[in-house]
Amino acid sequence: MGQESDGLELVTAPPITRELAAYAAGARFDDLPASVRTEAPRALLNWLGCALGGCHEPAVEAALAATDETAGPPRATILGHNRRMDVANAAFVNCLSSSALAFDDTHLATVTHPTGPVAAGALAFAETAMIPGEQFLTALAIGIEIQCRLSNMLLLAPAKANLGLYITGVTGPIGAAAALGLLRGFDTERMNWALGLAAAQGAGFRATHRSMAGLVVPALAARNGVAAAQLAAHGFTCSDGTLEAENGFASAFAAGADPARATACLGRDFEMLANAYKPYPCGIVIHPTIDACLDLAPRIPTGEAPAHVAIVAHPLAITLTDRPAPRTPIEAQVSLQYWAAVSLLRGKAGLDEIGQDAIDDAAVISLRNKISVTGDLSFGRAEATVEVRLATGATLRAHVTHARGSTERPMTDEELDRKFLAQTTRVLPGAAAERLIVLCRDAANLSDIGREIATLAATV
Amino acid sequence: MGQESDGLELVTAPPITRELAAYAAGARFDDLPASVRTEAPRALLNWLGCALGGCHEPAVEAALAATDETAGPPRATILGHNRRMDVANAAFVNCLSSSALAFDDTHLATVTHPTGPVAAGALAFAETAMIPGEQFLTALAIGIEIQCRLSNMLLLAPAKANLGLYITGVTGPIGAAAALGLLRGFDTERMNWALGLAAAQGAGFRATHRSMAGLVVPALAARNGVAAAQLAAHGFTCSDGTLEAENGFASAFAAGADPARATACLGRDFEMLANAYKPYPCGIVIHPTIDACLDLAPRIPTGEAPAHVAIVAHPLAITLTDRPAPRTPIEAQVSLQYWAAVSLLRGKAGLDEIGQDAIDDAAVISLRNKISVTGDLSFGRAEATVEVRLATGATLRAHVTHARGSTERPMTDEELDRKFLAQTTRVLPGAAAERLIVLCRDAANLSDIGREIATLAATV
Repeated sequence: MGQESDGLELVTAPPITRELAAYAAGARFDDLPASVRTEAPRALLNWLGCALGGCHEPAVEAALAATDETAGPPRATILGHNRRMDVANAAFVNCLSSSALAFDDTHLATVTHPTGPVAAGALAFAETAMIPGEQFLTALAIGIEIQCRLSNMLLLAPAKANLGLYITGVTGPIGAAAALGLLRGFDTERMNWALGLAAAQGAGFRATHRSMAGLVVPALAARNGVAAAQLAAHGFTCSDGTLEAENGFASAFAAGADPARATACLGRDFEMLANAYKPYPCGIVIHPTIDACLDLAPRIPTGEAPAHVAIVAHPLAITLTDRPAPRTPIEAQVSLQYWAAVSLLRGKAGLDEIGQDAIDDAAVISLRNKISVTGDLSFGRAEATVEVRLATGATLRAHVTHARGSTERPMTDEELDRKFLAQTTRVLPGAAAERLIVLCRDAANLSDIGREIATLAATV
Repeated sequence: MGQESDGLELVTAPPITRELAAYAAGARFDDLPASVRTEAPRALLNWLGCALGGCHEPAVEAALAATDETAGPPRATILGHNRRMDVANAAFVNCLSSSALAFDDTHLATVTHPTGPVAAGALAFAETAMIPGEQFLTALAIGIEIQCRLSNMLLLAPAKANLGLYITGVTGPIGAAAALGLLRGFDTERMNWALGLAAAQGAGFRATHRSMAGLVVPALAARNGVAAAQLAAHGFTCSDGTLEAENGFASAFAAGADPARATACLGRDFEMLANAYKPYPCGIVIHPTIDACLDLAPRIPTGEAPAHVAIVAHPLAITLTDRPAPRTPIEAQVSLQYWAAVSLLRGKAGLDEIGQDAIDDAAVISLRNKISVTGDLSFGRAEATVEVRLATGATLRAHVTHARGSTERPMTDEELDRKFLAQTTRVLPGAAAERLIVLCRDAANLSDIGREIATLAATV
């Protein structure tokens, strides 16, 4: 810091920006625990399926038309579209595809969707450089890890959480920049710049939900993380301590946030292992209710309509998804009442259940108007009770302690494969989908992951 | 809002997003007061000079190399570089140029630099469409106006201001999106989407100061405003009420912010008239101190060195610029002590005084180490007192009530012309600079402002 004293440079918080930068710059596949080396390909597969499954949603088509105005050299594949754009715009569009159906992964403690910005940025960049699978998976794991840790720092005690934050947009650029910096071979100094330049682009709040704008925040995070690494690669500097400094990232977003939380047991404990894949295409806090409803559905006698449904869940589920009358798929993605009704009536909760026809189904509308919701702080976030009262007066009840897909009851490899096949059936030949599953599972052994995966995933 | 009630859509705050959108979509040059119609060309001239003056700074050269990786079709001029990029990247680079020397305009009440994101976005877009001067000036004025009003909403009472915010990055995307939406002929609905999509990208905090990252925040705002309008143009939707809704823009950035402040007397009172142009290339809160030092400099007897300098200024000047030992031009831009020393010693405070040689000047270093600074809440933001004690014991004193360039003592047209000529002398032939001054002053009568101005401003 030079020899002269400068009052404003006295930073008492631990230097977490530099610590995270050093960690990301020095990470190697062989140093990751086996559990992380196993989880990274699962995260990749789940993300790729989400991107292919969502790549023709109206928001993605609109974004493609918009980015066409400014897109640069065609170096990175637009997944499912057999066309290419520059890395930043490809990362943007592919991340949008992966979040368009709310089917992407979730770090439940913070409701961060970590893989989207990281994987979209890393895969797009990987197409422009020959990136070995091990390096790619390392970048993916480290990017997700840093993103989840920073989300914890902002949202968990002692931070005074601002529930209005769209946390994926706030921490996503940093995760993506860490991954891109690693793929670009940054030293600690450049990584430090990249993380700071990404932190300065953290943005997003939840009022944009219920429209396409709610889907675009993770995509912007992907684009911004790519841009941050791109700037740092060309010598664009950033001051030290961006994450922890006075007037920096932590203090701007969360009063009371403890920076040390972001680096505690770094390299030993992995928050990315608490990241969950969704079995249902909707807000994760809705999932335990869906599990209970799928349990109840076959128990409702044919011809008997429920007269009333009572849901008890963690209060966060109510805060985020108490939305009794959704009119569009985007609104329905975050409607507790909608998913309870449709899963009770159909005994299913897949992609068919988020179509406009399901949302307009008179029976679903009738049932979702007969639902009461109650928050109970004694419930876990993956817990719910659903009680159905039939017209006859009989009552059926189901309780779920840990939703399917939660950390305690994770999706199995077979379930992830089935999810991938269901997501890709409309955009890929079955053989290509099967081959992509193999490539993702075996990603560590690929020599040029961008080319090998993108070639197949570009198929129209 | 449909026929069914939905608890989460009850918004009690005034619908300012829609009101601002309707205002921006419907604005016409002839409806602007004469004062605003006069001020808009001055803002344009001042901005263009800043961009040309800063276009070869190291941060801009680094950013150009970085954006080269992803730049799209060459449709918009990189000012001073005789080359073109896509509109989003050109807006990014040109806004960076205009902020690189801290010479851009400032809305003093909020320390927002409003013209950069708006003008950079609007001029880049104007090169792709034949935009008449009146429409361009309207877009510029409205973009600046909305940006300043939203900055007031976040930073002034009753909002509990977060001094860590880099407010240009937070409100800049919205100002730029409003201008671009107007140039694209948006109706209220599309403008509403554009403002919301821009608000969701508001970002930046002051810990990035003292490095290139501190210069890039306005540039990102320009790029993001362009992107927001681009998305909205292609039917990418945003939910209603983004600015005022629960979990929206106002609540995410400032507890207690009153949305109504952003629309009070809209179309009648113009906050853009409180926007000031800088006579000196540094943080505006330093300016009254420089004025006092330039007053004192000729009064110091030749050969007598000051033994001590005492500065009294508004506390905000101390908070933002108490930085006694800057080592680089970027640090010196926000150093109260540096500018006091250099202007006392040289009797000047222009672009030559922000070069590395001036910063490394032993006499300047010696004097800046003999300066004390004191905040006094009874002082206005454009007020300062400087007292110089000479080695002989004699004392000289100067008090400035309203700094040169402040709203009460604005830069005259002649001063702005001289500033423009000084800024552009290294990049443009004198005749081209003189011609650009005429074009900016007469902008209302141009038929294709993008082409007419860019042709001259691209000269190497």
